[in-house]
Amino acid sequence: MTGRTLAERRSKVLGPAYEHFFDEPLHLVRGEGVWLWDKAGRKYLDCYNNVPSTGHCHPDVVEALSNQAATLNTNTRYLHEAIVEFGEMITAKLPEGLDVCMLVCTGTEANDLAVQIARHVTGNYGAVVSEASYHGNSDLVLKLSTDVYPVEERPDWLAVTEPPNLYRGPFTRADDGPGAGYMELARRELDALGARGHAPAALLLEPMWESNGPMVAPADYPKALCDEVRARGGLIISDEVQAGYCRTGKNWWGFQHYDIIPDIVTCGKPMGAGHPLAMVATRRDIAEKFARKYSYFNTFAGNPVSAQVGKAVIEVIDGEKLGENCENTGNYFNAELAKLQEKHDLIGDVQGRGLFYGIDLVTDPASKTPFTRDEIRHLGSLIVDEGVITGTCGRYGQVLKLRPPLVFSREHADIAVAAIDRGLTRFAAERGGS
Amino acid sequence: MTGRTLAERRSKVLGPAYEHFFDEPLHLVRGEGVWLWDKAGRKYLDCYNNVPSTGHCHPDVVEALSNQAATLNTNTRYLHEAIVEFGEMITAKLPEGLDVCMLVCTGTEANDLAVQIARHVTGNYGAVVSEASYHGNSDLVLKLSTDVYPVEERPDWLAVTEPPNLYRGPFTRADDGPGAGYMELARRELDALGARGHAPAALLLEPMWESNGPMVAPADYPKALCDEVRARGGLIISDEVQAGYCRTGKNWWGFQHYDIIPDIVTCGKPMGAGHPLAMVATRRDIAEKFARKYSYFNTFAGNPVSAQVGKAVIEVIDGEKLGENCENTGNYFNAELAKLQEKHDLIGDVQGRGLFYGIDLVTDPASKTPFTRDEIRHLGSLIVDEGVITGTCGRYGQVLKLRPPLVFSREHADIAVAAIDRGLTRFAAERGGS
Repeated sequence: MTGRTLAERRSKVLGPAYEHFFDEPLHLVRGEGVWLWDKAGRKYLDCYNNVPSTGHCHPDVVEALSNQAATLNTNTRYLHEAIVEFGEMITAKLPEGLDVCMLVCTGTEANDLAVQIARHVTGNYGAVVSEASYHGNSDLVLKLSTDVYPVEERPDWLAVTEPPNLYRGPFTRADDGPGAGYMELARRELDALGARGHAPAALLLEPMWESNGPMVAPADYPKALCDEVRARGGLIISDEVQAGYCRTGKNWWGFQHYDIIPDIVTCGKPMGAGHPLAMVATRRDIAEKFARKYSYFNTFAGNPVSAQVGKAVIEVIDGEKLGENCENTGNYFNAELAKLQEKHDLIGDVQGRGLFYGIDLVTDPASKTPFTRDEIRHLGSLIVDEGVITGTCGRYGQVLKLRPPLVFSREHADIAVAAIDRGLTRFAAERGGS
Repeated sequence: MTGRTLAERRSKVLGPAYEHFFDEPLHLVRGEGVWLWDKAGRKYLDCYNNVPSTGHCHPDVVEALSNQAATLNTNTRYLHEAIVEFGEMITAKLPEGLDVCMLVCTGTEANDLAVQIARHVTGNYGAVVSEASYHGNSDLVLKLSTDVYPVEERPDWLAVTEPPNLYRGPFTRADDGPGAGYMELARRELDALGARGHAPAALLLEPMWESNGPMVAPADYPKALCDEVRARGGLIISDEVQAGYCRTGKNWWGFQHYDIIPDIVTCGKPMGAGHPLAMVATRRDIAEKFARKYSYFNTFAGNPVSAQVGKAVIEVIDGEKLGENCENTGNYFNAELAKLQEKHDLIGDVQGRGLFYGIDLVTDPASKTPFTRDEIRHLGSLIVDEGVITGTCGRYGQVLKLRPPLVFSREHADIAVAAIDRGLTRFAAERGGS
């Protein structure tokens, strides 16, 4: 069967809502560590997938999954040691006070439940998010996902803040006190929310403003924003679906870079290394207030198999010191990407930390004209042709997203940078020749 | 570690929103087929769990899971044969025309997406559900879950119909044409919905009215209800999370008992035999209209591991003829439960089909006074003590729910009936002695 034929069957049976990443769909058949192989036997460096946080098919995680699946898989209404142990391991990674952990299956379910809890506990209905954010695809959290939800249909209970993009935003590195500038904009949006009759139930913080392209915010802005939302009665939900689990370096969570202690922490993607596993962690007083009105049950979430997988992932991250690897490799990767930027006018900016970077691509550096979605898709395809898999994000879809498994080494960073270098050179040559 | 200590740790780390099934929490450690073992080595017949549809820890399913997890686990934006094959296997089980299958992780995600699709495609906002129904726990579908969502907070776009309970409802087996009676009540609710300014986007049909206690509706009612909702512009969503996958007998889906072809079919629980796997199947024209405005992506759903598990479950159900087993064993089980009813005044009614029965328990048969939640919890605990695990459901929590894995045999039915018999006898004796 050819890839094309499979792609046609896929389109027929999964329907038109499903997309591909590249010009030619990639037909993968095997993964190991940071490596993926396609149907033709070609090997690719995975510089994109954070879900296999411990590396593709980590033997310890596979073993935990397989052994528990062969032994027992029920639900949380029966007692089981693994779920309790997993909950204790997760809460041990969180600041004191965030000691209750509710398990769900996806980041969508996590954020949906977190907002339900925040609304119930605060009695407020409003939500505060960033422009071009993404928090999932249920009816509720899709409305919070300003990256994809139609602007003209935004609910009046939503306050949308300006992401603190120091390259592309209204306040840049060239400005004095850009954090104060972004805070002033945020205050205006919160005032406008109030004028529409809504107080905030929650701020959904993406600690890397991921969908905009990962960014490092002005140091003073995130805490000031949290303080302001709290002063207006809202809770702080740190959406760690992308930034959590040592993605940003030694810190287990993204919020730790900004002197913030959230009221609720949600996470998903990296927790199960591919197994559907996500969570809502919060304080006991919040959980108790919610539980007085609602019980919560999720058929699949926190079953013994999920719990064993969740435990194995944490054990691998701790045992292999992947947080430290992320920090060390990340610093090197960051420096190499900075060198690459010197070489290519197509690179407008590089932002990120740990093992999470975004390359903001521009066809004109002076005006910062962003790549179109077609252009970045084509660049991504050229880099795939050079043997490296990347992704895209950004307010205009203009950011090349680098977010590899946490077992990424300096050698892998070199391979990735070289492939991006060649891809950009080919892209520039094609452009010049057109 | 004692069960009690583990229960205390569990309550501390998972928080107060988590419940147990029985007076003493059951601490399970192993499962195989229809059997479960607790920490002390005691063996129980599982007469409740439908999630392990092919039986606990079916070796083919475990093998499919383990092999794929050791090989590759990515997402649906890369090509993979398994997801295409799985989608084709699912749509082959559906009526012609329902040939697009979108994969999600949970029944909640399935119903949430289905309602989003129905609203977008119809342009209407209303939803029609049954009293005491359950469709999941996202912000949207929790509002549709009249079994748990606070009555005083029901949105004005919700029409709530009377479940066609021929034992306990306003029209019973004693009435002529009870289906017409229920239809008249439904029409009134639909008219009231219209008077509140809403046309229905969808009817969410539970083909067994599961949360009320599984019931067999008057033959003419479900189709008449669907016709009426369609006439008012709504789509029909058959929520097959409990009724699907041969739960009701040879028919793969619950709606097939009622001469209905839905516009959307959702399923979850039994699809992955414990692995989080769920789906929304629909017609191509509906999927296309939805995709013109929205793309859909779910990080975990339809990954190669989920897809291989989904394939293995269907192969086991087909290969072991579990649909036929469900029909044959079910007929026997039903007859034995009818005999049990003769023996115990506490049994007001038995309803169901296939391998899905509800025993409606009453402390007074004449007035049909339902068991309280404490009473049925205690009865369930007595039956556990007799070696059989059951569940509960029902509008008043008064129904003993029997919904075993599909590999349940006549011998297992005998064991279950004997244990329920002894449990009821002990319950009656305790009551008489109090």
